[in-house]
This record gives sequence, C-alpha cells and structure tokens, in this order.
Amino acid sequence: MSSIFTKIINGEIPSYKIAENEDFYAFLDINPNAKGHTLVVPKKEVNKLFDLDEALYNGLFSYSRKIAKALEKVVSCERIGMAVIGLEVPHVHVHLIPLQKMEDIQFNKKVKLDSQEFEVVAKAISENL
Amino acid sequence: MSSIFTKIINGEIPSYKIAENEDFYAFLDINPNAKGHTLVVPKKEVNKLFDLDEALYNGLFSYSRKIAKALEKVVSCERIGMAVIGLEVPHVHVHLIPLQKMEDIQFNKKVKLDSQEFEVVAKAISENL
Repeated sequence: MSSIFTKIINGEIPSYKIAENEDFYAFLDINPNAKGHTLVVPKKEVNKLFDLDEALYNGLFSYSRKIAKALEKVVSCERIGMAVIGLEVPHVHVHLIPLQKMEDIQFNKKVKLDSQEFEVVAKAISENL
Repeated sequence: MSSIFTKIINGEIPSYKIAENEDFYAFLDINPNAKGHTLVVPKKEVNKLFDLDEALYNGLFSYSRKIAKALEKVVSCERIGMAVIGLEVPHVHVHLIPLQKMEDIQFNKKVKLDSQEFEVVAKAISENL
C-alpha cells in the first residue's frame, strides 16, 4: 500500500504544496510544530534515510537547502532546524522547522493554523525559491 | 572566542573521536541521548546550517552518511535519526542518533556511559567506516 506521502505526491490527498521537481516534493506539515514547518520528501518511496542511494540522498539535502533558504526569508525565527526521524511514516521525510526554542523541534507542542494561513505561507515560500 | 567544537577539533578539549578529514570531524556526544549518539562538525566555524556554502553543506551530509552507515552496523536500533538544531552551540553540528522511540531524539532523556563504553563504541564505528 502507498504511504500517505505517496498519496500526497500523487494528489490523492490534498496538501499545501510548496514545490516539486522530478525527484522531490515539498509541502507544509499539516500538524506543524511551528508556522512554516515543511516536509521534503523523495518521490521514490524508501523507508529509511540511509537506505537512499547516494545520488538521491545528496539530492534530497540539496533540494531541502533551497527550500530552507526560501523558508527563512518568509518566517521570522532564530534559525531553521532540520530533523529526519521516520518512526511514524515509513517514507523518508526531512522536517524543516522555524525555531525559536528547543521545544519547537521536540514534536510535543503543535500550532493551529487555518487553511488560509497554510495557503499564504506555502505561496510565500514558493515565491521566494 | 573559539567554539567548544573548535577546541575539540584542535585537541584542546578531549573527545571520543570517530574520524576526521580535511573538512569535517566526527565524535561521540559526551551527553548522549542514546549509546552511539554522534556529532559531525565542519572544521570551519559557521553558526547556522543554511549559511554554509553549498560545497561544505553538501560535504557535511555526504560525510554524515558515511558515519551513519558505520554507526548502524555497530549499534542496535530501529533506525538512525538525524537532527540539526544549534540553539546551544553556535557551530554547525549534525546529530546522528540511534533511535528506538521518539523520545531518543527529543533531547530530554540522557544515558550515562563510562569512558570505556565511549571508547569501545567510538572505535567500533571507526573500524566500520
């Protein structure tokens, strides 16, 4: 069965998309730690980060860098944090999270945004790429 | 003033070193979330991940991949997690953390190892590179 991220990439589940290319898809986390919390996902469904082949692994971090640089222009924060965990969804995903404090990257505290706020921030990041 | 990581790289502060090359230094976190918790640091002292120039940024993730692949041969875990935060030490560092559960990457729970345990795991990772 396809992962939830594959369904998002295929458009079967809607997402606040930021950008995509042949290999990667970037969109807003629907249950964000902070406003602007973004996921970058390889279109190829691989469970574990270090099982990606070298080219796809390198490409994932290169693409994440472009997204993060746009994100930091759009969302006010101390810095952009990065995490790759994957204990919940078995499809590699890079979290890019605007940080003010440690709590913002501990995945305990969540923020609520309405659909318009999601749309505005996704569009702003996309326009700053 | 040099960062604590620059002092470690220069040997002014001792560390359980795993490996180094011209640009990067990998060693065990002295206050680990889990056994095998490793830090990979660029020798150039830069505060924020996304301020690294593209070549050094790409090199950092490429080097981290090599270390992680050795680490997962040595430490039993569900997977290796990665985090780049940097709110405490203003010198870029990639955390590579053997994960069993989410708590292992939340930086609240710490494990105690004695110096022999640190030495054994650092040597084992190094030998699996």
